[in-house]
Amino acid sequence: MAGNSLGKEFVVTTFGESHGKIVGVLIDGCPAGLSISEEDFQEELDQRIPAQPKIVSARIEKDTAKILSGVFNGKTTGAPIAITVDNKEIMSIDYDKIRDLPRPGHCDYPACVRYGGFNDYRGGGRFSGRVTVALVMAGVIAKKLLNRYNIDVLAYTVSIGKVKSEKKFSSAVEIRKNRSIAATRCPDLVCAEKMEEAIVAAKNMGDSIGGIVECVAFNVPAGVGEPLFDALDADLAKALFGVSAVKGVEFGTGFAAVEMFGSQNNDEFTVKDGKVETVTNNAGGIFGGISSGMPITMRVAIKPTPSISREQKTINLLTMENVTLNVNGRHDPCVVPKAVPAIEAVAAVTLVDHLIRAGHITRVFFEDKNNNSKKERL
Amino acid sequence: MAGNSLGKEFVVTTFGESHGKIVGVLIDGCPAGLSISEEDFQEELDQRIPAQPKIVSARIEKDTAKILSGVFNGKTTGAPIAITVDNKEIMSIDYDKIRDLPRPGHCDYPACVRYGGFNDYRGGGRFSGRVTVALVMAGVIAKKLLNRYNIDVLAYTVSIGKVKSEKKFSSAVEIRKNRSIAATRCPDLVCAEKMEEAIVAAKNMGDSIGGIVECVAFNVPAGVGEPLFDALDADLAKALFGVSAVKGVEFGTGFAAVEMFGSQNNDEFTVKDGKVETVTNNAGGIFGGISSGMPITMRVAIKPTPSISREQKTINLLTMENVTLNVNGRHDPCVVPKAVPAIEAVAAVTLVDHLIRAGHITRVFFEDKNNNSKKERL
Amino acid sequence: MAGNSLGKEFVVTTFGESHGKIVGVLIDGCPAGLSISEEDFQEELDQRIPAQPKIVSARIEKDTAKILSGVFNGKTTGAPIAITVDNKEIMSIDYDKIRDLPRPGHCDYPACVRYGGFNDYRGGGRFSGRVTVALVMAGVIAKKLLNRYNIDVLAYTVSIGKVKSEKKFSSAVEIRKNRSIAATRCPDLVCAEKMEEAIVAAKNMGDSIGGIVECVAFNVPAGVGEPLFDALDADLAKALFGVSAVKGVEFGTGFAAVEMFGSQNNDEFTVKDGKVETVTNNAGGIFGGISSGMPITMRVAIKPTPSISREQKTINLLTMENVTLNVNGRHDPCVVPKAVPAIEAVAAVTLVDHLIRAGHITRVFFEDKNNNSKKERL
Amino acid sequence: MAGNSLGKEFVVTTFGESHGKIVGVLIDGCPAGLSISEEDFQEELDQRIPAQPKIVSARIEKDTAKILSGVFNGKTTGAPIAITVDNKEIMSIDYDKIRDLPRPGHCDYPACVRYGGFNDYRGGGRFSGRVTVALVMAGVIAKKLLNRYNIDVLAYTVSIGKVKSEKKFSSAVEIRKNRSIAATRCPDLVCAEKMEEAIVAAKNMGDSIGGIVECVAFNVPAGVGEPLFDALDADLAKALFGVSAVKGVEFGTGFAAVEMFGSQNNDEFTVKDGKVETVTNNAGGIFGGISSGMPITMRVAIKPTPSISREQKTINLLTMENVTLNVNGRHDPCVVPKAVPAIEAVAAVTLVDHLIRAGHITRVFFEDKNNNSKKERL
Repeated sequence: MAGNSLGKEFVVTTFGESHGKIVGVLIDGCPAGLSISEEDFQEELDQRIPAQPKIVSARIEKDTAKILSGVFNGKTTGAPIAITVDNKEIMSIDYDKIRDLPRPGHCDYPACVRYGGFNDYRGGGRFSGRVTVALVMAGVIAKKLLNRYNIDVLAYTVSIGKVKSEKKFSSAVEIRKNRSIAATRCPDLVCAEKMEEAIVAAKNMGDSIGGIVECVAFNVPAGVGEPLFDALDADLAKALFGVSAVKGVEFGTGFAAVEMFGSQNNDEFTVKDGKVETVTNNAGGIFGGISSGMPITMRVAIKPTPSISREQKTINLLTMENVTLNVNGRHDPCVVPKAVPAIEAVAAVTLVDHLIRAGHITRVFFEDKNNNSKKERL
Repeated sequence: MAGNSLGKEFVVTTFGESHGKIVGVLIDGCPAGLSISEEDFQEELDQRIPAQPKIVSARIEKDTAKILSGVFNGKTTGAPIAITVDNKEIMSIDYDKIRDLPRPGHCDYPACVRYGGFNDYRGGGRFSGRVTVALVMAGVIAKKLLNRYNIDVLAYTVSIGKVKSEKKFSSAVEIRKNRSIAATRCPDLVCAEKMEEAIVAAKNMGDSIGGIVECVAFNVPAGVGEPLFDALDADLAKALFGVSAVKGVEFGTGFAAVEMFGSQNNDEFTVKDGKVETVTNNAGGIFGGISSGMPITMRVAIKPTPSISREQKTINLLTMENVTLNVNGRHDPCVVPKAVPAIEAVAAVTLVDHLIRAGHITRVFFEDKNNNSKKERL
Repeated sequence: MAGNSLGKEFVVTTFGESHGKIVGVLIDGCPAGLSISEEDFQEELDQRIPAQPKIVSARIEKDTAKILSGVFNGKTTGAPIAITVDNKEIMSIDYDKIRDLPRPGHCDYPACVRYGGFNDYRGGGRFSGRVTVALVMAGVIAKKLLNRYNIDVLAYTVSIGKVKSEKKFSSAVEIRKNRSIAATRCPDLVCAEKMEEAIVAAKNMGDSIGGIVECVAFNVPAGVGEPLFDALDADLAKALFGVSAVKGVEFGTGFAAVEMFGSQNNDEFTVKDGKVETVTNNAGGIFGGISSGMPITMRVAIKPTPSISREQKTINLLTMENVTLNVNGRHDPCVVPKAVPAIEAVAAVTLVDHLIRAGHITRVFFEDKNNNSKKERL
Repeated sequence: MAGNSLGKEFVVTTFGESHGKIVGVLIDGCPAGLSISEEDFQEELDQRIPAQPKIVSARIEKDTAKILSGVFNGKTTGAPIAITVDNKEIMSIDYDKIRDLPRPGHCDYPACVRYGGFNDYRGGGRFSGRVTVALVMAGVIAKKLLNRYNIDVLAYTVSIGKVKSEKKFSSAVEIRKNRSIAATRCPDLVCAEKMEEAIVAAKNMGDSIGGIVECVAFNVPAGVGEPLFDALDADLAKALFGVSAVKGVEFGTGFAAVEMFGSQNNDEFTVKDGKVETVTNNAGGIFGGISSGMPITMRVAIKPTPSISREQKTINLLTMENVTLNVNGRHDPCVVPKAVPAIEAVAAVTLVDHLIRAGHITRVFFEDKNNNSKKERL
């Protein structure tokens, strides 16, 4: 059983359901001495709800983080950190009438089998995208840690349906700035507008649409990762498939590498400013499960939201008859924008875990020379 | 550290290097009472070396499994099962002269950083494709267990370079039969011939080529898998990325789902012969990380072998100068055929692990009514 | 890092500090379908505070459990269960002035080194006995599960200081009844009175006193446990040493076995009512790490509370000078009574974990025939 | 299932059975760069068989270690290290006739239930003391690592039956020297002689006898260990209970602390040579699960060997009748001397695991300035 935890040394466990009291996260293994306040989470929690209401569901999830444990005098103590957000706007009434009618594309049916029908079915319950709020909060802490080591993790939309951005960006700063502007989280602002149109078009048809999210981690040092089964890419993939609606993950050239020759796909080494680099980065910064020092690049396929307002065929689990289903309620016609921070978060969490395991992130973190820790006074 | 183990209840750990004494596997958590003999491994070990010598390296790895522990009177005892194969034909001399020249596309450089240069660099050492022999042996045991439960896992090649097979097969029997004939492990025999030509063409250019392997698991019951981070797809992806040269993994329609509408991609439910099924299987048999009872389908991108005989640029790690590299030795121009059994093996191992965790596979397995176990006699 | 979790399939993680907002527990892997309400915790939470105020600290911890997640319609859903209790009566002022003066017998000093001084030092913080409230709550759920399988876990005091109870009880019912009467949790009521006197005497001297807690698990079936390192006794010992102030653990005759001959200590087998039993139970129900079907018996040594009001020598970590220390504040002169429910709880949790791993406890639990789960309706 | 592994970052898994082909150990997570040769294991393997044949079984287990993987050019590579010893002198014929007659005090019966009768019952199979050879080999590597950090782990006998040594030793050197002389591994040589007599007396009665082993780890730095469930003492206890015949574990004053007052048992702090120490070490070097910098002391109760040649009562599992049993074959009248190296080994392995987790032992170990690793050349 179990299965709600991610990581081995920096262990992130989420809890809570879409329509329960709270959604929460418990982080065990965070180094002591990191400054954390409840305000630190607000920007990311706000950004999870894109500014553009046209492309999201009607549910307004203004979330505020409550730190329950593990932080003392504004700094992490090394003890487990529990953080929750309340679920406010809950309309469970929507879901009761479809309780026995599993929604196509959702995990209502497998979850019912798995949990003997005891699972909280309201709004997807434990399997709702709502739960990614917990990931985002873990990601805030992970990224705070990574920033101390100058490591930058950045996810953004590169395609929505058939609209693809091919634009290359010269800097993380530009990506981040543009991403915050576009409701679709695509930093190619020309493309972003077409993506919005595609989402609105799908919505108007009572339909939904998917997309691809790219995630890049800059400045991860070479030599991070384990051989074979705890390979850095293996653990990143595991974490990414833990995000709702993910159906594919690739690193570097990924599936496109299949049609390349070895001589094209191999990344030749070179010395630049006394540092080892590769001329290209088709491997996406990972060879044999271990980081090369180049940016780690991954692309994640997000399926179209299963919740659509068009009539669909399903069955009644009580009567075992074929029926038709009309799902009302609030749906996101495209979950890609909301997947962006979740993907960034799980990538950051996995990197922190591996950086701790590799000895790059230490158990205690002293932020400044003037801190009043006992150790420094010793 | 660590990282050489796969699974939580059915734990497979591999050990050994390309040019060491042996390659081995240790399986902890195998149910007691399963018939196993050293001969059981031979067919798969033989099949790992495709019959068609044109498309593989000159190294002839005739492997024979030695069971060191965990089997008594021809049956598993519940104790850890250690199995090794000897490394016979080793020509380490090839590798000494390129010791300080990391091969592009290989993990020579990251491994050197990770292990301070102490890693066994001969033939890729721990990171060699040779190590997949250990996976194949674990897979033999996993598939024996799965067969008791009528679950069939089957991997096969669907593309090599730009040659793609679109043929659909009606039965696992046909796939299995054709696959054993084709050196490329593609059951579409017309396509398989073109694939061989593509491999030979790449080889003749001193180059290499990649491909896509599809893997299907039939008859996995609904309700297997854990929520979120131990999701069945997440764990399958982690295992698949543990196989050398894998750069992408997708389930069901995967990346193609991105361009579909929800109404196209959603799998509608229906009742057939009193059993719940979905009309389509775009999800690849998994919703929210839990099996739906439909076939589990995954596709795995294999990059072109990094070992090529064409001249490449690299650096000398001692002098930190840019140099050119000519790698001699035995290379597979395409590792896809050898990846097929490894992919099938890790998928089978992961399914066994989850089936044990879900309570579907029991701790003791009684094969026949006439067995002479003490328990039955009680 | 990490380290706040217990169990492999039934995973209990505690969080919170003595003087923080809450103390909480997160349970991942609880079977679905178990009835749980917030009231279920009250009796045990109340019992943690012995009725006899003479022998405990002045702190009145009236605790009420809040279920945050994992329970729906009064039953567990299979999702992680988070439960918290608020910390109400906090007087942190007591601890500030001794911040740099590590208390003898406490972990103030090692924790300061371990966490760089960032640990919450108030009242022992994360290391306070207060945290056992979280264990007790996990134990309530574990015992509910065990009761469904007719397994009964019972801890009680057998010695306080030099006062030892030698009385044997014929039934769990009698132990449980008497235990609830005696503030010391010793079911031998004659002895219990002397124990109270011993505690009061120590308190009056400004001193503290320890004791031994015995724990018995009845009706654990034979065949539960794993070989060697996940042995049932090994995991029970690990859990028991996780309780504050525990300095020794023994099973069956334990340390006394050392002075016995094999012929005295061996438990001979016999058939009774068609069932295998041992005539004696010197092994405490475990051979080679696996349960024998006899009661599992363990004894746990609890050291005298390190908090005493007598003057002690310590050092000032800032000045590195030897100083004398007077600890004021509320102290329990004897933590044995409060350790009893914590010991019972971790034993129960460990048994549930192993019973799930052994396949004895199933993933879904149907309490009654009239339940309205979907599965039954299927 | 599973359960044959110890540790989280330095993971030791044992395999093999008493009468199988081999006994082996697999170590995953050993830092790269440690010198290891097959000869390194010989001294400990030889010492496992005490020089004094009077007190041990007739089985002469001259063991020689074979390193199968993970070592290259005489140094660890960071890859998993597999080491085996052959089982040579096997007389399985002894055990066949008692197959259905579970031996009192052994785990024959629980193992039969647990594994459905498929377990290798010959000589205790997987549960034999023979398997501790694997632990001893893991211990050799662990102690080599610890020695680099000046940490010394030392186990020795302090009592056999009723013969107790009270002698205190001033140095590890003296303990080690005397221990190697005495067949009973008791460094108090006067006492050791009486212990031998006690063993011989038990043997002459066809009986067996137990004892207590003390283990001390010197120079473990303060701040090692995790809170609560991965507490250093909790993990040491788990490892110690994984050794055959262990029935009790205590740290520092242990069970004796129960009869002390807090003012007696508390270890007062003092500054000595600018270093924090405690005046006494009643806690055995661990407070709240974290090391204090003082020697870590533990005592382990070993029960009398269950194998005795006196007639005992048992049952026939086939007929379910009460029968009498005479066990022939080679028995150790006292396993305490053989337990000494196993206890030392698991303590060393657990300390290495925690020192890696605490960041004290690094992932790569450079033994000398003149090593020819690539990294140094960079």
